[in-house]
Amino acid sequence: MILEKFVAEGLAHYSYLIGSGQQAAVIDPRRDCEVYIAAAEAHEQTITDIFETHRNEDYVIGSVELAARTGATIHHGEDLDFRYGVPAKDGEVVSIGSLSLAVRKTPGHTPESISIVVTDRAVSDRPYLVFTGDLLFAGSVGRVDLTGNTAGAAALMHRSLHEALLPLGDGVIVCPAHGAGSVCGGHISDHPLTTLGYEKGTNPFLALDNDAFVARRVQERTYIPPYFSMMERLNRDGPPLLPASRSPAPLTPAAVKAFQERGARVLDIRSPTGFGAGHIPGSLNIWREGIAAYAGWMLNYTDPIVLVDDFNLDLDRVVRTFQRLGYDNVAGYLAGGFSAWSGSGNPIAAIETWSPQDLAGRLADPDLLILDVRDINNRTEAGWIEGSQHSYIGQLPAHLDTLPRDRLIVIHCDVGYKGSLGASILVARGFSRVVNLLGGFGGWMKAGLPVKR
Amino acid sequence: MILEKFVAEGLAHYSYLIGSGQQAAVIDPRRDCEVYIAAAEAHEQTITDIFETHRNEDYVIGSVELAARTGATIHHGEDLDFRYGVPAKDGEVVSIGSLSLAVRKTPGHTPESISIVVTDRAVSDRPYLVFTGDLLFAGSVGRVDLTGNTAGAAALMHRSLHEALLPLGDGVIVCPAHGAGSVCGGHISDHPLTTLGYEKGTNPFLALDNDAFVARRVQERTYIPPYFSMMERLNRDGPPLLPASRSPAPLTPAAVKAFQERGARVLDIRSPTGFGAGHIPGSLNIWREGIAAYAGWMLNYTDPIVLVDDFNLDLDRVVRTFQRLGYDNVAGYLAGGFSAWSGSGNPIAAIETWSPQDLAGRLADPDLLILDVRDINNRTEAGWIEGSQHSYIGQLPAHLDTLPRDRLIVIHCDVGYKGSLGASILVARGFSRVVNLLGGFGGWMKAGLPVKR
Amino acid sequence: MILEKFVAEGLAHYSYLIGSGQQAAVIDPRRDCEVYIAAAEAHEQTITDIFETHRNEDYVIGSVELAARTGATIHHGEDLDFRYGVPAKDGEVVSIGSLSLAVRKTPGHTPESISIVVTDRAVSDRPYLVFTGDLLFAGSVGRVDLTGNTAGAAALMHRSLHEALLPLGDGVIVCPAHGAGSVCGGHISDHPLTTLGYEKGTNPFLALDNDAFVARRVQERTYIPPYFSMMERLNRDGPPLLPASRSPAPLTPAAVKAFQERGARVLDIRSPTGFGAGHIPGSLNIWREGIAAYAGWMLNYTDPIVLVDDFNLDLDRVVRTFQRLGYDNVAGYLAGGFSAWSGSGNPIAAIETWSPQDLAGRLADPDLLILDVRDINNRTEAGWIEGSQHSYIGQLPAHLDTLPRDRLIVIHCDVGYKGSLGASILVARGFSRVVNLLGGFGGWMKAGLPVKR
Amino acid sequence: MILEKFVAEGLAHYSYLIGSGQQAAVIDPRRDCEVYIAAAEAHEQTITDIFETHRNEDYVIGSVELAARTGATIHHGEDLDFRYGVPAKDGEVVSIGSLSLAVRKTPGHTPESISIVVTDRAVSDRPYLVFTGDLLFAGSVGRVDLTGNTAGAAALMHRSLHEALLPLGDGVIVCPAHGAGSVCGGHISDHPLTTLGYEKGTNPFLALDNDAFVARRVQERTYIPPYFSMMERLNRDGPPLLPASRSPAPLTPAAVKAFQERGARVLDIRSPTGFGAGHIPGSLNIWREGIAAYAGWMLNYTDPIVLVDDFNLDLDRVVRTFQRLGYDNVAGYLAGGFSAWSGSGNPIAAIETWSPQDLAGRLADPDLLILDVRDINNRTEAGWIEGSQHSYIGQLPAHLDTLPRDRLIVIHCDVGYKGSLGASILVARGFSRVVNLLGGFGGWMKAGLPVKR
Repeated sequence: MILEKFVAEGLAHYSYLIGSGQQAAVIDPRRDCEVYIAAAEAHEQTITDIFETHRNEDYVIGSVELAARTGATIHHGEDLDFRYGVPAKDGEVVSIGSLSLAVRKTPGHTPESISIVVTDRAVSDRPYLVFTGDLLFAGSVGRVDLTGNTAGAAALMHRSLHEALLPLGDGVIVCPAHGAGSVCGGHISDHPLTTLGYEKGTNPFLALDNDAFVARRVQERTYIPPYFSMMERLNRDGPPLLPASRSPAPLTPAAVKAFQERGARVLDIRSPTGFGAGHIPGSLNIWREGIAAYAGWMLNYTDPIVLVDDFNLDLDRVVRTFQRLGYDNVAGYLAGGFSAWSGSGNPIAAIETWSPQDLAGRLADPDLLILDVRDINNRTEAGWIEGSQHSYIGQLPAHLDTLPRDRLIVIHCDVGYKGSLGASILVARGFSRVVNLLGGFGGWMKAGLPVKR
Repeated sequence: MILEKFVAEGLAHYSYLIGSGQQAAVIDPRRDCEVYIAAAEAHEQTITDIFETHRNEDYVIGSVELAARTGATIHHGEDLDFRYGVPAKDGEVVSIGSLSLAVRKTPGHTPESISIVVTDRAVSDRPYLVFTGDLLFAGSVGRVDLTGNTAGAAALMHRSLHEALLPLGDGVIVCPAHGAGSVCGGHISDHPLTTLGYEKGTNPFLALDNDAFVARRVQERTYIPPYFSMMERLNRDGPPLLPASRSPAPLTPAAVKAFQERGARVLDIRSPTGFGAGHIPGSLNIWREGIAAYAGWMLNYTDPIVLVDDFNLDLDRVVRTFQRLGYDNVAGYLAGGFSAWSGSGNPIAAIETWSPQDLAGRLADPDLLILDVRDINNRTEAGWIEGSQHSYIGQLPAHLDTLPRDRLIVIHCDVGYKGSLGASILVARGFSRVVNLLGGFGGWMKAGLPVKR
Repeated sequence: MILEKFVAEGLAHYSYLIGSGQQAAVIDPRRDCEVYIAAAEAHEQTITDIFETHRNEDYVIGSVELAARTGATIHHGEDLDFRYGVPAKDGEVVSIGSLSLAVRKTPGHTPESISIVVTDRAVSDRPYLVFTGDLLFAGSVGRVDLTGNTAGAAALMHRSLHEALLPLGDGVIVCPAHGAGSVCGGHISDHPLTTLGYEKGTNPFLALDNDAFVARRVQERTYIPPYFSMMERLNRDGPPLLPASRSPAPLTPAAVKAFQERGARVLDIRSPTGFGAGHIPGSLNIWREGIAAYAGWMLNYTDPIVLVDDFNLDLDRVVRTFQRLGYDNVAGYLAGGFSAWSGSGNPIAAIETWSPQDLAGRLADPDLLILDVRDINNRTEAGWIEGSQHSYIGQLPAHLDTLPRDRLIVIHCDVGYKGSLGASILVARGFSRVVNLLGGFGGWMKAGLPVKR
Repeated sequence: MILEKFVAEGLAHYSYLIGSGQQAAVIDPRRDCEVYIAAAEAHEQTITDIFETHRNEDYVIGSVELAARTGATIHHGEDLDFRYGVPAKDGEVVSIGSLSLAVRKTPGHTPESISIVVTDRAVSDRPYLVFTGDLLFAGSVGRVDLTGNTAGAAALMHRSLHEALLPLGDGVIVCPAHGAGSVCGGHISDHPLTTLGYEKGTNPFLALDNDAFVARRVQERTYIPPYFSMMERLNRDGPPLLPASRSPAPLTPAAVKAFQERGARVLDIRSPTGFGAGHIPGSLNIWREGIAAYAGWMLNYTDPIVLVDDFNLDLDRVVRTFQRLGYDNVAGYLAGGFSAWSGSGNPIAAIETWSPQDLAGRLADPDLLILDVRDINNRTEAGWIEGSQHSYIGQLPAHLDTLPRDRLIVIHCDVGYKGSLGASILVARGFSRVVNLLGGFGGWMKAGLPVKR
């Protein structure tokens, strides 16, 4: 038997290959699915079955792509009208070598969510492992706010956890669909895997009865990125197959400009310092590791995207991240990096960057507006800078009208990255006096500056 | 937290890297140990501790090799006279980030065998995982015939299993030292990992009481390959080294500061924009592709070099470039990139960066000194900005006395990179008013600004 | 013949591997020299010679490192007192397969600079290619300012170009030591290689007579980075080693024979069928995946081990397995695989292989002795062929005296691999009538043949 | 400027990427064309143009595939009615950065053959390099027998060589489409590249006047593999795009049998010894490195192909070789290698293998027929074993009727591989007494046995 976990960074998405004999199954594959095929080949196994634990909303599912390449059967929950694959009934069992993969209906995160309970008949009838999708994570549980009926979904989830999952036994290994950093659950721990026993003993959500669980869940404050709706549609209908893809083209500064004039979005993936000191006017700044989490708030699926970096290292990975989010519209990148632009004689825009100490020295300035773009929960839990105003980064584009154009706006987030994104949005929309706080609120605190709660 | 398993095929030997924060430990490493170093590097962690669950007899241990390359401490059971490492007492705890790795004496397979119980203090005091060495395997247990006293060893092993291991709780993940096919245990199942609960319910050896267990074990017919005696000697005394170089260590901001205070040179390999908007005070800026050409002007061969980048991509290539120049003194790099520094509350230095247009608008300012650091031939051939002074970048450190400390110095080169290096030299040497021209003379010309010949 | 160019970016340094037959030479290697070894291995060639065209000043030479790992001879110009290698006289010729590498003194860049003229005797006596070091580049020539006497060096260089190089003929390929961007020559073109004819027609420096050439060179304004002096000292004295292990050498059939006569163990890692139908007399057969389990029974740690395979695929993994077992004595492998042996006219040994059906048809033959070499537990659990005798494969070498030399011995194991190992032991020890059962006891059972318990 | 050569082993096919600025062109791409895209990306270049020097007949061209992935324009000779791309006139020039790629009509090998002359305008108007396709090779020239009018084609080729090519100048680098071992030219030297000057001085074909050239060419004895006609059709019409390909499936022995019964061809890619001692009845033996040269004689494009190896190493490369020949019908491979078959209880076929000494000892046996399957030219040049009969391996299937079924047939080739292929053909077609000579004629000679001329 083999079990391999695949991590899509940024999304903190986990998918799995599980095999026995000459067969293998994949759970919740991502769209760039060669990795599963290669891993199965290395063990001389053929992928015969694919499971979708639920209609994922945070990335483009890869099951249709993988099925097209392997001929495998896609299984998913029967309580949603998927346009591909075959619905699996509760209790249905798929054999993979000596393994039995039994489907359990575990609604909650979504109505059609399923878990997959694995037993190895060669050893015993006892459950060995369970793929829990977005039901149970290490230290946390899945979101219940996506269906519109949070209380109802929470009640269902509690039942799924306590009636379908926990009775399997403490010793069962838990393989969830997400790890720490995912937008699909709050406060997920960074444990790479866990067990039902460990969760029962340590997961705060499992200590609540149904009422308390529902009560807690309805109070949660969460954000739904707009691209989720696109993902939901794609993942219900089956996304388009990946084209034998054209790579993004290297572009001269003149070509980047031409693209921009025809409506392309110039996305600068450098750090806040690099972007701050100089960037292409009108460009947006999402650092390379933040694309999975924030591109879906800011970019559409049709206008070409042009990337700007410093040394153009490992852009393949950046493009792959976009593909996982369904963005097949990355058209090109600035060859030679930003210094090709600054050496081209074209105008250069800049955003001032301050250290926490700089800001502390100017707090008294009445011209100054501090704008906090963190997740509201982080603000509540960690505190804030006195007098600061809040607008979550994902919702900032919709809230620009509430901001004064005549004041000096100092944006900050947790670390400085999202602040730079926010600043780039403001400047691109005509705000002329914008500063990003390097180090964000974390740097502020570590510098020993005063925190309000 | 990260957990990675490494399989040595043929031997069916499993070793593990477990990490948290910026630290990692390795359990039972094999001799070709680059894989652990590479995996730790990928997570920006340093291997600080190595555990030998027992004196392995079926392969050459890699702990001595790995310790030589990383400086990590080797821990092993105290009941054998190892010639290397430090003996660990029962109950001794080693911290790896938020993890506690507690040593439990579990004799049986060998008298000095230990197990390592892992708890994550960030989550709970409950045991999360246990490394069982050759005590407990998936579906089987370790050999007890190697010491000569099979019955005695079997009785000890039974006690270790039932008194030290099983009471940890059903939900504890079990990471053994071998899988199916090993000569270190019979009938090991092919499950890649397991739990105490699953083993309690399915492992035939755990269903026996002490007498029955001993009776069964003494009846086993086993073979001892002659090379085991060589391995036992080597693994007690420490095998010969396959020597090689240490990789640079990931460093916290505090560690970078400490290095700097002890005389290390902090080298920032980002672009002029990133460096300009924020950098570690006193650091030098040579962009990654300029190291081959300019490091030899600026750095000596003895003081440690510490690297600073944004996303720490492909640092291996940077280190290789240094080696080609004879610099074997690259000691470390800032883990998490510059944003770890800006989030640390430490002071941030900055150098203003101007576009050609910015400079053109201030040419008349008598306070301003334009310093051209290009190769003199480039100046002669391509022309210069009227009124600019020349000092080749390589010779700039020797010419600082000729520069006025009270004027605003705008440095430029051909493209902007060497200008940033020059600016970093001046600022590190106490010049307080320094600007770098983005795009350099090339950008100046392309912007259509006046050139003097 | 093979020719590979290696580019060290940043330095724009070119080094070369040139090979023919089973030999290869490296020109101006860099310090991280695994690349040359890997490339030579991919062509089953051994690096026997290294050339330094001059004492390089811009990087640490890799010849000492490479020589330490390969045992190759280092050749350099005789007009400098190098502390390593052997000085080469003008006209001296080194043979690499059918290639002649002739040394030409070409002073100028440095006094001891040499060029290497390559002729392929298998084709013609005409020069085919020349390695020009820092004498001639694409579109440029080397620096002459490093010795202190620029005019003198320039005059020498002009003579080297026009008297030693150009007379070789227009059609000669030019392989220089640097490309565009190097500090070792100005205005080098970005052509990856060139010819004497193309340079004669286009290189501005070649159009000048000696006086004009000298006049132009003395007017050049150049910079000498301070690290050059460190490089010059290191490269004259030999830089410190980055020590590491030697790879096994590709061997001709004659070399394998010589090794064997001096006590080496020839280990054939092919399958039982390949080994059975033909092998090197006296060789032992452990299939590649069985090495971890059985090498420790059969091989010692001192006599060299020579490997034999069919297509020499992935031998690195085989060597790594040996290292894990403490065997650092794998000395070489048969280049070209077993067919190189069978095509060499040397004697070929064979071991008959039978299918289960073949054996079943001859069970009644009283001359026949069936020898079961499985683990005794497998025999007990799965049963045996009636009348068979047992001796565990690991203990077989010690039990040879108990076997009759006058009977036909049919060896079998579980699958056929260990049987072939057993047969190879018997035949190497003088048993003349030995058969291996393909498929082993497993095949016997699956063919429906009678099993005794 | 960059120039990279790509070698398709087995076919000895050379293709090239040549780039300048942000553009690149590919010459004669192969079908698995990711390598060109990756190489262009590494230099931040976009592939804008593709050249086919002629309608290749020995492999599936990759230009259609590459154009589909990059949008590049395909250029080919105008004297054939290609169904894709655009015809290029003599003298037509394509710009790639500062390079001019000029088309020259050079008929001979085929009527529409072109050469591409490269000039770098940034340096000079002199030709720098020429891509010669199948016109001029290192030490040889292209075939002229494929059009049916050998004398006419030879006369055209002579003119192309002497009027279009040689006048470009001795210093021009020559980049041909094939190297040593190709079926597209005889006696090609193994020089990786050459120059017009070196060829003029050493290539025997260039020393002949038109009449002598024609006379020599019409006397050549050559073979045309039957798959050439398929390639010619595909390469004129444009081959199908590669499907997002399904990998071959791992198969059990039972599944291999079922495939075989439904008409699949079982292809054993092991060496002659492995195949000889045991193989699946009815399987054909082409060793892995011989597939490029011999599959096209033996296999069709529709029946599934099932591979058999020992350890299933690097099967990806084997599949890629098939794809280059247009075989998209590799359906599966025997999981576990041949030992899975021999352990399955299924019948095992065998072919006796003799050493040269074995054969020498039985030469007098009148029952024995020696069958030489080498290229007739090798027989003529190197000599033969007295009394042997000749039938070229490629034509053997068509000549089976001429062989006696009642005699002991000993097949030999040069080394032993093609002999094993021949033996496998005979045995699969019902010949019962077949022996393969290990080492072939080469081994015979090296063993000092008598040679007839």
